[in-house]
Amino acid sequence: MEFLTSSETFLLDLDGTLYLSGEVLPGACEFVHRLHKSGRSFFYLTNNSSTSPSVYEKKLISLGFPVPPNTVLTSGTAAALFLTRHYAQSRIAVVGTQALRQQLSSAGLSIYTEPSHADVLLMGYDTEITYDKIRWACGIVDRGIPFFATHEDRLCPHRLGCFLPDCGAMTNLITEATGVEPTYLGKPHQAMIDLVFRYCNTVPGKITLVGDRLYTDIAMAHSAKMNSLLVLTGETKLAPSTGRYLPSGVVENLHKACAYI
Amino acid sequence: MEFLTSSETFLLDLDGTLYLSGEVLPGACEFVHRLHKSGRSFFYLTNNSSTSPSVYEKKLISLGFPVPPNTVLTSGTAAALFLTRHYAQSRIAVVGTQALRQQLSSAGLSIYTEPSHADVLLMGYDTEITYDKIRWACGIVDRGIPFFATHEDRLCPHRLGCFLPDCGAMTNLITEATGVEPTYLGKPHQAMIDLVFRYCNTVPGKITLVGDRLYTDIAMAHSAKMNSLLVLTGETKLAPSTGRYLPSGVVENLHKACAYI
Repeated sequence: MEFLTSSETFLLDLDGTLYLSGEVLPGACEFVHRLHKSGRSFFYLTNNSSTSPSVYEKKLISLGFPVPPNTVLTSGTAAALFLTRHYAQSRIAVVGTQALRQQLSSAGLSIYTEPSHADVLLMGYDTEITYDKIRWACGIVDRGIPFFATHEDRLCPHRLGCFLPDCGAMTNLITEATGVEPTYLGKPHQAMIDLVFRYCNTVPGKITLVGDRLYTDIAMAHSAKMNSLLVLTGETKLAPSTGRYLPSGVVENLHKACAYI
Repeated sequence: MEFLTSSETFLLDLDGTLYLSGEVLPGACEFVHRLHKSGRSFFYLTNNSSTSPSVYEKKLISLGFPVPPNTVLTSGTAAALFLTRHYAQSRIAVVGTQALRQQLSSAGLSIYTEPSHADVLLMGYDTEITYDKIRWACGIVDRGIPFFATHEDRLCPHRLGCFLPDCGAMTNLITEATGVEPTYLGKPHQAMIDLVFRYCNTVPGKITLVGDRLYTDIAMAHSAKMNSLLVLTGETKLAPSTGRYLPSGVVENLHKACAYI
């Protein structure tokens, strides 16, 4: 676990890593407080684009985590950065929550609800989705305009053992109808990596991504050549011995990782 | 085409068979008027459960088709018959349009919008779907209660070359989240066959199903041992020479079939 001791920046997944169904996982608070006290920088990283970073800030504070300003980064934040870099002058149609639309507007983007005027479509995890939104998204994509989505997770954990259709399941409705697949922006994709490097003042070898999902968290660390710590408190229940995405280290829970900070 | 001449009852698919995007297909009106004049019985058969039979009646009349009473049968009609036969005393949760809920209520069923009290879930082609409906449908299915859907078509033709996510795409959201597949009731399934035989006073060998889709129309005729006429005006563009569902006959359009009536 030498990589943990020498890392300067930590990227912390939320659900399944720090908490589950609103309950802090063993050692999670202690781990982040140790990072904070030792002077390391850290960021909270989630693919959920239905809620604004400020709501996550309040939740993390209420659960006892230290939350310095601008440390919560969502796939909505990654989408805002990506669109301001590549589509700053475009009219952006959004299938997403009011919180996501506000986040994009605050980043200076022009959000359109009138599909016939859109140059780009962004889909998020839309807990306010309606059939009218699905219909106009199909119409936009059918016109051949660029189609992006905040993340490709198809299921969102709801409570222990129960899931809800997430962003990737909703984009699937559009893909099935039009034959067009979106470009995804959240973990493990490049837009999220770009977002992280915008905030990190260090080289990938000094960054550790801590997460519970192999194909989002550990895959993103691989892509960006960062270290990765897999915790077995969420989706992954066994340390993988083979496979595409092997983590730099595995711990049962974050309590076991505290000794290395 | 001897089977056409000797058939006493005709089951007529709508979209792609009689009309497409609101335009009557060649010979379709003449074909149905010939059936009517020759004294044969006929029924209009569609899997679309978002609209009530009375709306289809008006549409068909406005397009010039003869529409005797109770000749429009939808997958919503099949669901109403199935549920009154098997779940007459149950509390039925419906993810569907107001038109579908009214159709079920008119059949004497108890429709519940409060998921915690439901004994059965029925999903239709819900052009009024919301994320709240998806959430409570997931919760109901997760509780292990019976899950039915009006039909499994994943796409609904919208206008030439464009489709919209249909009932089967929506049930897929629930199946993906819960791992539970629904029992489908529309074409080509047994509930639709049961509905047809409720109205037909003849043996399957004297019935011809006319349609444009192999895996719904022609498949249903196969299951029920009816004759089938494939028209190449809708989804199927070429007469199949091999495959699971070979029709009794194939015509380019219904104008070509008029000579046999």
